[in-house]
Amino acid sequence: MTLSNQINKYLDALFPLNRSITGNGVRQSLEILKELIPIKIHEVPSGTKVFDWVVPKEWNVKDAFVKDSSGQRIIDFQKLNLHLVGYSIPFKGKMGLKDLKEHLHTIPKQPKLVPYVTSYYKEDWGFCLSQKNLESLKNDIYEVLVDSTLRPGSMTYGELVINGESTKEILLSTYICHPSMANNELSGPIVTSFIAKNILEGKKPYYTYRIIFIPETIGALTYLSRNLDKLKKRVVAGYVITCIGDSGHFSYLQSRQEDTLVDRVTLHVLKYCTDKYNIYNYHDSRASDERQYCAPGIDLPVGSLTKTRPGKYPEYHTSGDNFDIVNSKNLLESIKMYEKCIKVFENNHTYKTTVLGEPMMGKRGLYPSLSKKLKKGQAIYDMMDILAYCDGEKDLLWIANKINKPLVNLIPSINVLIDNGLLKRVN
Amino acid sequence: MTLSNQINKYLDALFPLNRSITGNGVRQSLEILKELIPIKIHEVPSGTKVFDWVVPKEWNVKDAFVKDSSGQRIIDFQKLNLHLVGYSIPFKGKMGLKDLKEHLHTIPKQPKLVPYVTSYYKEDWGFCLSQKNLESLKNDIYEVLVDSTLRPGSMTYGELVINGESTKEILLSTYICHPSMANNELSGPIVTSFIAKNILEGKKPYYTYRIIFIPETIGALTYLSRNLDKLKKRVVAGYVITCIGDSGHFSYLQSRQEDTLVDRVTLHVLKYCTDKYNIYNYHDSRASDERQYCAPGIDLPVGSLTKTRPGKYPEYHTSGDNFDIVNSKNLLESIKMYEKCIKVFENNHTYKTTVLGEPMMGKRGLYPSLSKKLKKGQAIYDMMDILAYCDGEKDLLWIANKINKPLVNLIPSINVLIDNGLLKRVN
Amino acid sequence: MTLSNQINKYLDALFPLNRSITGNGVRQSLEILKELIPIKIHEVPSGTKVFDWVVPKEWNVKDAFVKDSSGQRIIDFQKLNLHLVGYSIPFKGKMGLKDLKEHLHTIPKQPKLVPYVTSYYKEDWGFCLSQKNLESLKNDIYEVLVDSTLRPGSMTYGELVINGESTKEILLSTYICHPSMANNELSGPIVTSFIAKNILEGKKPYYTYRIIFIPETIGALTYLSRNLDKLKKRVVAGYVITCIGDSGHFSYLQSRQEDTLVDRVTLHVLKYCTDKYNIYNYHDSRASDERQYCAPGIDLPVGSLTKTRPGKYPEYHTSGDNFDIVNSKNLLESIKMYEKCIKVFENNHTYKTTVLGEPMMGKRGLYPSLSKKLKKGQAIYDMMDILAYCDGEKDLLWIANKINKPLVNLIPSINVLIDNGLLKRVN
Repeated sequence: MTLSNQINKYLDALFPLNRSITGNGVRQSLEILKELIPIKIHEVPSGTKVFDWVVPKEWNVKDAFVKDSSGQRIIDFQKLNLHLVGYSIPFKGKMGLKDLKEHLHTIPKQPKLVPYVTSYYKEDWGFCLSQKNLESLKNDIYEVLVDSTLRPGSMTYGELVINGESTKEILLSTYICHPSMANNELSGPIVTSFIAKNILEGKKPYYTYRIIFIPETIGALTYLSRNLDKLKKRVVAGYVITCIGDSGHFSYLQSRQEDTLVDRVTLHVLKYCTDKYNIYNYHDSRASDERQYCAPGIDLPVGSLTKTRPGKYPEYHTSGDNFDIVNSKNLLESIKMYEKCIKVFENNHTYKTTVLGEPMMGKRGLYPSLSKKLKKGQAIYDMMDILAYCDGEKDLLWIANKINKPLVNLIPSINVLIDNGLLKRVN
Repeated sequence: MTLSNQINKYLDALFPLNRSITGNGVRQSLEILKELIPIKIHEVPSGTKVFDWVVPKEWNVKDAFVKDSSGQRIIDFQKLNLHLVGYSIPFKGKMGLKDLKEHLHTIPKQPKLVPYVTSYYKEDWGFCLSQKNLESLKNDIYEVLVDSTLRPGSMTYGELVINGESTKEILLSTYICHPSMANNELSGPIVTSFIAKNILEGKKPYYTYRIIFIPETIGALTYLSRNLDKLKKRVVAGYVITCIGDSGHFSYLQSRQEDTLVDRVTLHVLKYCTDKYNIYNYHDSRASDERQYCAPGIDLPVGSLTKTRPGKYPEYHTSGDNFDIVNSKNLLESIKMYEKCIKVFENNHTYKTTVLGEPMMGKRGLYPSLSKKLKKGQAIYDMMDILAYCDGEKDLLWIANKINKPLVNLIPSINVLIDNGLLKRVN
Repeated sequence: MTLSNQINKYLDALFPLNRSITGNGVRQSLEILKELIPIKIHEVPSGTKVFDWVVPKEWNVKDAFVKDSSGQRIIDFQKLNLHLVGYSIPFKGKMGLKDLKEHLHTIPKQPKLVPYVTSYYKEDWGFCLSQKNLESLKNDIYEVLVDSTLRPGSMTYGELVINGESTKEILLSTYICHPSMANNELSGPIVTSFIAKNILEGKKPYYTYRIIFIPETIGALTYLSRNLDKLKKRVVAGYVITCIGDSGHFSYLQSRQEDTLVDRVTLHVLKYCTDKYNIYNYHDSRASDERQYCAPGIDLPVGSLTKTRPGKYPEYHTSGDNFDIVNSKNLLESIKMYEKCIKVFENNHTYKTTVLGEPMMGKRGLYPSLSKKLKKGQAIYDMMDILAYCDGEKDLLWIANKINKPLVNLIPSINVLIDNGLLKRVN
């Protein structure tokens, strides 16, 4: 099965599930992804205190609908789980149109789309539908059923730690709490899973990769509260992976500090690997769990490489966020871009020359014996540039930027120099 | 009496007095300002050593004129004190036009204006008149009287310290040594007095305000020599207040270090409170007592917020510097601009979040319970921005600049966050 | 004899000698320059280990030619020493055109010029000629003679240390290893010698000047390996002096660190003393011994002030690099530019004011006693600017840049201030 087909298989399997910040939708989703990678599942009981927050009750839904007096389901959770407001409490009753409307949500400016609405922290119920549908509702007596449960249970999240040579960690965080929407959020967990699979299948990485699948906000806070000391000690860079499946240009949201390793690596990769891209700073555009990772006192160096920024594409948080805008080609492109970043992380070491002054390249067969002018682009140029700057303090990324070349293009020269005993890795 | 009328009253009362770096003109001026604010008067004896300088003899004038042979006063100190060169020594005599001209000063390029000339440190006498008048003088025998005294006495200055919660001080320094000119210098002492009055009438400020009325140069040096250790320990920002009454745009002269608190505050205020303004650096435009406060070894962080820079308006140091270019409307505008700066100083504290990660705003009623898109401009945005950056190190001014909003607009959100226990002030 | 005539005398005397990285051509060249300055000659035996390199055997040439079957010398070392590949080993034999061509070098794109080719580190022989000549060669039996010796001997370099008041050193390094070419390299040793002569003939300098005449690369490495600790301790700035005789604009190649004293001084001089000039950074354009001086672990702050950068003029490393492009007028201009840099070095001290606040200039006769407006350009302005910034930390170069004036123009004011006891030199 091609990678593209595999991606489509998981998109199809995951799309219909009724994910929320708690409940079986999350568990089922993680079980499906476990086919790809050995995710460890954690359950955190409702009521657990998490910094300023509390893990909420667990929410599950059997059925939900609004029927007209002819018995026809005119709003039907079975057809599209977005129709039910997230965290709707159980309800059963009959009411006229006016009373019903108090519980209906639409987007008047996008009259064909069903909005995505939740009420996590205030107990209520409601339905979402298109403005067009709302306008077609007649005066009638409607039967409403919300066959949900909201009870003490637990919040579920997944975690996978891939040990590298170093205990220094790169954090990949994606959220898994949205129902049937493709870009926000299926793109995130799928791209993250395939990145993880490729790391697992390659040779042992230099960095340790900590990969987590969490409900947005409350999940990030919970994970931080359980692991903060370790994370602060180990995490040298991280990404929030979301909204990474549409056809827009890549966008990078800088960490709050703006110039950490993840910022330098990602800008380098975007500069050399794509023509058009957007850079946002933390103030202009923080949108998701980077708000927790970068918060004062937490201070993890975490950015986010997305396609169109969350909230900036018209289908965001609506039924329009589906396979019309997300496809396996986009996702493959995103997986590759993240893997280019990881390749730069993995190869961005600091080196020091082993001899004083320039080494004699000729006696090692690395330099033409005759003093004619060198041709442009010969590897000897890269080697001499590397030797000119490897002072044991500047990392390879600094040097690549200085000499205006993609870091990955320098790896062969680095290897030749190491093999010839002219360079040693410092860290 | 409106504030505007009050200002006019003090302009009228102060304008005719014959101020100089010593003498009764200064004492009378300070007595008048004491009606507004409780200035403490200091006298420093002539001959006192002040760094590289010495406090000069005290100068006072009873009368001074040049009469023609018909007995008519053709140059008359009683009509305009600028006619007499400052610090002119006593003289009485008769002389022809040629000898008289040796003692006359004009501005040929501004033929209708009388220049302002002094000879503080070389004993001499002289008269100033317009070039037009000079040209009308006939060959005649002129009678000259300078009925002045130049004797050991004292130099007078005024001081007002308004204690705040903190011992950290803001220095407001204005000079009071120029005779009948309106912008340079009456604008300075009047604006300074009304600022001081408003601080006194408000609630106890955070900073302690040290407000001084001194003769230019020798007064600043004297004040520094008497208070240097204390000032170096306490003064965190300061302004030289002068030339603040004309109709030009505001101008800010940076401190020598260019990026101290007073520089940051003033640029912030000018950026958000006025469309057009000029920024000068210390090299390009230092003109007055900032030359002493910022001198090497003194190193106080003092700038100067003026209207048109001293020396840059055509009436500078002439009889044209009068109520044609200075009025109460301009002075009111300047008082308000300084008070905007003071408001930023007073509110520019450093805060730290009290919870890790984002707080749960919803349970405090600060966030909509339903997850619909937020509207632009809601206070919740400011609050989330403040929480995102308050790390206990960056001050509120840094944050305001980062999120591109006037600091004062953030004060209500800061207060809500403090009231909700989400933010604490660090200093 | 005018300076211009002297320069021409040395150009003429040095041009024909067959310099290489070792051999009598270097010795003869240094002997000639010893007429100007007391260069000390050093000999380093072949086989000496020098960091990653080894001092090569010594090479000398008696004669070398290619004769056609009529006995005519069609390539003749006696006419132009560039015809023989540098470091050609002895050879004698006859061969057809095809075999001969294996040993011939031309520049097809510059068909009239003879290239400069060496084979220092691979034992071989060869001849260089113009492409035009090559194309005129007929099928014939050619007689080839390379009457050279390549035997253990020594490498020669010259050194002159001119002691200054300080043990801090400025390094002037020029190379002397190229045969008959005028810009690269005769311009370097000649300009360097005349600079040294002028330093010797002037008053004792502040800095100690270490001036070396070395073969490129191996000479620089040898000198470094013998003197590294001392150089690292003492050298505060340095220049590689080469390619300084053509008519192009001045070019400055920054040190690897880019903002050391030599970089600041040279940019200052170029800014104020010439209209058009080029600045290159170490990555873009390092070409010569700065590659050794600035190498990681060596880290000397060395730049290079040239005319057209080495390699950037079409005659580089060809027989076209002759007196058509180099003349005494250009060399004189270059000597002067370097001496302007030296003047800035020598006068760039750090000063501190001796009094707090502004001094009273009037009592020292430095300020007009009458308070009229000062005229632009009066020395008093420079003095007041200097006093405003001399805080014992910023050097005079910083101040000159701040007030946007050539440092040398400030020297008279500095001297007046020192003579009046208002300024003292800190270092």
